[in-house]
Amino acid sequence: MTPDLSALIAPSRVALIGASDTPTRLTARPQQFLTAHGFGGEVVPINPRRETVLGARAVPSITDAGAIDHAYILLDAEPAMQALTDCAAAGVRVVSMLADGFAEAGPEGAARQARAAAIAKEAGIALIGPNSTGVVNLTNGFVCTTNAAFVDPAIPRGGLTVLSQSGSMTGMLASRGTARGIGFANFISTGNEAVMDVGTLGLSLLDDPTTTCFALFLETVRDAGALERFAQEAAKRGKPIVAYVLGQSDEGQQLAVSHTGAIVGAAGAIPAFLRGIGITVVTIFDALLDVPGALVKARAQPDRPRTATVLTTTGGGGGMVLDQISARGVEIAGCGAQTRAKLGPQGIALGSGKLVDVTMAGARPDVMEAVIGSLLADPETGVLVAAIGSSAQYNPDLTVDPLIKALSAAPDGHAPLVTIPLPHAPDALRLLAQTGVPAFASVESCAEGVAALLADPLPGRGDTPLPQTASGLLNAAPAGVMDEVAAGEVFAAMDIAQPAQVVLSPDGTGDVPLTYPVVAKLVSPDLPHKTEAGAIRLNLTDDAALRHAVADMLTEAPCPVRAVLVQEMATGLGEALIGLTRDPRVGPMVTLAAGGMLAEVLGDAVMRPAPVSIDAARDMVRQIKSFAPLRGYRGSPPGDLEALAELVANVSTLARHERVQEAEINPVLIRADGVMRLDALIRLG
Amino acid sequence: MTPDLSALIAPSRVALIGASDTPTRLTARPQQFLTAHGFGGEVVPINPRRETVLGARAVPSITDAGAIDHAYILLDAEPAMQALTDCAAAGVRVVSMLADGFAEAGPEGAARQARAAAIAKEAGIALIGPNSTGVVNLTNGFVCTTNAAFVDPAIPRGGLTVLSQSGSMTGMLASRGTARGIGFANFISTGNEAVMDVGTLGLSLLDDPTTTCFALFLETVRDAGALERFAQEAAKRGKPIVAYVLGQSDEGQQLAVSHTGAIVGAAGAIPAFLRGIGITVVTIFDALLDVPGALVKARAQPDRPRTATVLTTTGGGGGMVLDQISARGVEIAGCGAQTRAKLGPQGIALGSGKLVDVTMAGARPDVMEAVIGSLLADPETGVLVAAIGSSAQYNPDLTVDPLIKALSAAPDGHAPLVTIPLPHAPDALRLLAQTGVPAFASVESCAEGVAALLADPLPGRGDTPLPQTASGLLNAAPAGVMDEVAAGEVFAAMDIAQPAQVVLSPDGTGDVPLTYPVVAKLVSPDLPHKTEAGAIRLNLTDDAALRHAVADMLTEAPCPVRAVLVQEMATGLGEALIGLTRDPRVGPMVTLAAGGMLAEVLGDAVMRPAPVSIDAARDMVRQIKSFAPLRGYRGSPPGDLEALAELVANVSTLARHERVQEAEINPVLIRADGVMRLDALIRLG
Repeated sequence: MTPDLSALIAPSRVALIGASDTPTRLTARPQQFLTAHGFGGEVVPINPRRETVLGARAVPSITDAGAIDHAYILLDAEPAMQALTDCAAAGVRVVSMLADGFAEAGPEGAARQARAAAIAKEAGIALIGPNSTGVVNLTNGFVCTTNAAFVDPAIPRGGLTVLSQSGSMTGMLASRGTARGIGFANFISTGNEAVMDVGTLGLSLLDDPTTTCFALFLETVRDAGALERFAQEAAKRGKPIVAYVLGQSDEGQQLAVSHTGAIVGAAGAIPAFLRGIGITVVTIFDALLDVPGALVKARAQPDRPRTATVLTTTGGGGGMVLDQISARGVEIAGCGAQTRAKLGPQGIALGSGKLVDVTMAGARPDVMEAVIGSLLADPETGVLVAAIGSSAQYNPDLTVDPLIKALSAAPDGHAPLVTIPLPHAPDALRLLAQTGVPAFASVESCAEGVAALLADPLPGRGDTPLPQTASGLLNAAPAGVMDEVAAGEVFAAMDIAQPAQVVLSPDGTGDVPLTYPVVAKLVSPDLPHKTEAGAIRLNLTDDAALRHAVADMLTEAPCPVRAVLVQEMATGLGEALIGLTRDPRVGPMVTLAAGGMLAEVLGDAVMRPAPVSIDAARDMVRQIKSFAPLRGYRGSPPGDLEALAELVANVSTLARHERVQEAEINPVLIRADGVMRLDALIRLG
Repeated sequence: MTPDLSALIAPSRVALIGASDTPTRLTARPQQFLTAHGFGGEVVPINPRRETVLGARAVPSITDAGAIDHAYILLDAEPAMQALTDCAAAGVRVVSMLADGFAEAGPEGAARQARAAAIAKEAGIALIGPNSTGVVNLTNGFVCTTNAAFVDPAIPRGGLTVLSQSGSMTGMLASRGTARGIGFANFISTGNEAVMDVGTLGLSLLDDPTTTCFALFLETVRDAGALERFAQEAAKRGKPIVAYVLGQSDEGQQLAVSHTGAIVGAAGAIPAFLRGIGITVVTIFDALLDVPGALVKARAQPDRPRTATVLTTTGGGGGMVLDQISARGVEIAGCGAQTRAKLGPQGIALGSGKLVDVTMAGARPDVMEAVIGSLLADPETGVLVAAIGSSAQYNPDLTVDPLIKALSAAPDGHAPLVTIPLPHAPDALRLLAQTGVPAFASVESCAEGVAALLADPLPGRGDTPLPQTASGLLNAAPAGVMDEVAAGEVFAAMDIAQPAQVVLSPDGTGDVPLTYPVVAKLVSPDLPHKTEAGAIRLNLTDDAALRHAVADMLTEAPCPVRAVLVQEMATGLGEALIGLTRDPRVGPMVTLAAGGMLAEVLGDAVMRPAPVSIDAARDMVRQIKSFAPLRGYRGSPPGDLEALAELVANVSTLARHERVQEAEINPVLIRADGVMRLDALIRLG
């Protein structure tokens, strides 16, 4: 359901159900704020016990209120349910709900929330919340919220729309943003998202002409599909989305049978999903406010180098900025040769190392304008970062002026410019925000922002289908863990190489026409971890050793076995793990990790929403540090990492089969020419 | 040299050499600031071209000025040299110098700086700078600086003394600290530290009764010994030191022959040294201002759990604080049972998970006072972190009041309390600072601060001597890389286990009374990396194989060899690397890393100033993640990590021998019972 945009943020008639006549009450706030912010629509307080509420004529029930676009229910949970039913009867299109006591409050609350969702869906109501502090549109004064921060008439208007699952954080963001002049369009507190999730609301707000970018404060993801559509549509319209994600507990993942869960943890799934669909994830809270606008104004140009140039008047502060940017993996470029050739002869200091330090001469606006102008045009500049010293505090105009002049005189295709005032300089920050030059409030936010500006657009989702033979095998298999032979047949149907093998009968008899040494394993769906269970023997050098080992294992087998699998020993230059999991919130994810126990301990793993394209898979391979030897580090023989990327993309297509709950091949041998799986695990729903 | 404290920060008569009469000039600032801040001492401008300077009678030369305690030379480099000579003649005790053009400006400047240092030392002058923006003591108005930020009369007075190698950063810190009410005692811009380094200045400022804590902004370390003495003395007096360190380039380390340099990099040496001597290193810039005061007021009590409890009125914001603290490895405790038993029955919400969320009820001061009071007394509370919602912005008094009341009523030995206002709340921050409750300006600074409050006091330096036999061998050896046999004798003299071995003559002849399989290596100081040079053969199973391999290697040897070393093959449960290096700035450092190439790639290594105590060595072992299997992870057999810690402490005693430039044993085998080195490298100066 996509809510009507005007009913959502620009309603003609608004009902405040349960509005209080006592000015100090929380439930009196929306009416006060709507008045204070000059909302032009009609506001109808609904209160059966009052003739008037805060001076406005009150109506006893929504059913007596006439046509209402948007209602905010300020009642406690149970009366709120009745009010919602009344809204349905009255044909209200958007309803926000303040009350708690729903899904966050145990089974009874969850049942209540399900009833609310059913009522809303039945009536075609776009329900926001429950547990929502409301909806704010600063452009038209529709400040329909209980959050105290919106008492402030000075919150700047602008292009940033905030969607937050935490109601209190809308206020924190408004407060911190106001202090530095960030201009806001809308705030929606999405609360429990019984009906309208962040993605769906974001989709409808894309049509708001005021909104140029989005900041999401997320505690979870409730509709991954809607969020992905929102991300795709926002990208098409050039409206960046930035998210800050509260950590997720690892509970609920403990039932997973594969190692993949232990390696990546549930905590990483949501950020990995968001990055995978093209949303910028920040980890510094300030960056949630600073980065969206910077992405609108200062994204790196495709034909310029992927580097940052740091310009400063103050060595220590500029060095700090350079350090923090570099620490986030961004390459630092020094002063371009063109600029040095042009300005050096004029006696302008440009620093000798990577930092372009114009020293105190930069306090002169004409010098600063010349340097910035030259660096913006310089083909060696990727993104220009101006770290501004004390002048930002004492002469904000003189600081901002040369930036504006240099920007307006810069040639087409010039490098983008961002700024970080080093002292506490709220006036400079506000001035920069007004003039549209991205500014960062802290060094760490700046560093995170510059990294985001230079990030490559992510390669897309994969579109390769799962081969039909593999689908057929999966369709035919019963629920639960497939045994290794059965799972291996699926991977074989996907054209994934495996060692030469034979399957012996459960008592271990049968011919073994293989080249020794071999490996023998007991086959059972109850033995996903064979080493721990004593169900695998390696390096058996002849038939006698094999038969002896098999007899041994069968004697001590902890469960009935279906067969004995014998495979030729194979070796590679390195090992990897590839796993597919289904996160309950964000859906199928594919994980690539270095092989062996250390990957688990050191967390050298990367996860993305599945299926992935071959480009995305190559990007995953690049991120695994332990593959350095396979890239020829210190003269090691290189491994076939291209084949590994193809394998990752291939395994990720298992996401297309809905019954696949988990799949893992571990280890994968990485060889000089090709890759080979040694093990196979699939769990079906 | 320890400068006289009163001449440094409380002089009776100050000379400003080169003071300008033009109010807008940089060199006019110190006189203006001294007047504006009400400095009570006499200020003498020295200017041969003016009768008066800014209204004060000028003196043509320092030699005509009478007794001067402290002079600030504001002249350019060359005239500044003459002025310094004049100061020496005039018996001035402390001289600060503004000019650049010294060691930072090439060989000529370096020579000039050496001359300045010589003049100062000869005359017993405590020279600050050159490249110093000056000295500030807010307590008595001695604001003798050229930094523009000190124009502000509202910079709060307090206990924090700032020592900064970057002059501009003194102003940035003053500016950002003022905005949130941090009280400052002194600022010294130490500049090039030709004579007075940060450590020496810190030592003398320890006697300043106003100073309760220190913030250091460091670009390098110039006197590691002085800094260590400063850290030791500051710890004795309970005056915490917090440092922010600009990143260091890895240049200059490229000549190192051992792998240790590549693993740890030069960049990590200074922070590791600082931590090793007990200085708190922060990586978030805000934390440099927030954490020193917090360490004065709120360090964790030794008899309380090493955990943080997060209290909030706002779930989203509190969750963010909890997340960030937890991400820094701090264990989170929920609401203590005592508090739950006491307050739960009163109907006060306390949250169900780890976050103590009192919800909007916390806006009531009596509720907040009761909850904080109970949590402060609760034995399960380690450090209490109060994440304050919108009330911090709109009702700072009502927010701070219950904290103060609860603190003053708390029993002896109560848990320490720190706060983080979530909105932009400068008034609340200032109020908290005034009342002595530590507050953090950002979530990330709070998280870094809480981790610092809970950090264990570091175990001390080691005091074990290097055995005399080992010293004797080192004394007798020539400079350069020792060959493996000679280096092995040193390690043997230190009682470090090695495999059974024989040394064959350079042509490979001689008896081999060892148990096969064996390893054969060519011995030469020119072969530090044998694998790359083809100078090692593993797993030789009998005498014939050995002789054949030796003949092979000798034929292809890239350099003359001194001997052939044959050792019995040995295996262990895991491998490590132990290395000793001498950093040009901070001196001997010992490194422990996981064995193999992955340690290098993944940076799973830890470094500390050498020698280390056994406690410090145990702490290093604990930090290596790759040792997880040796701790019994996933049922692996445990390794003798206590023996490894002893070995680290033992190897670190090589730091006592000044000629040892580098030493490395790599790999060290970690066995179920004991450890054994397989290789040996020592480079002598």
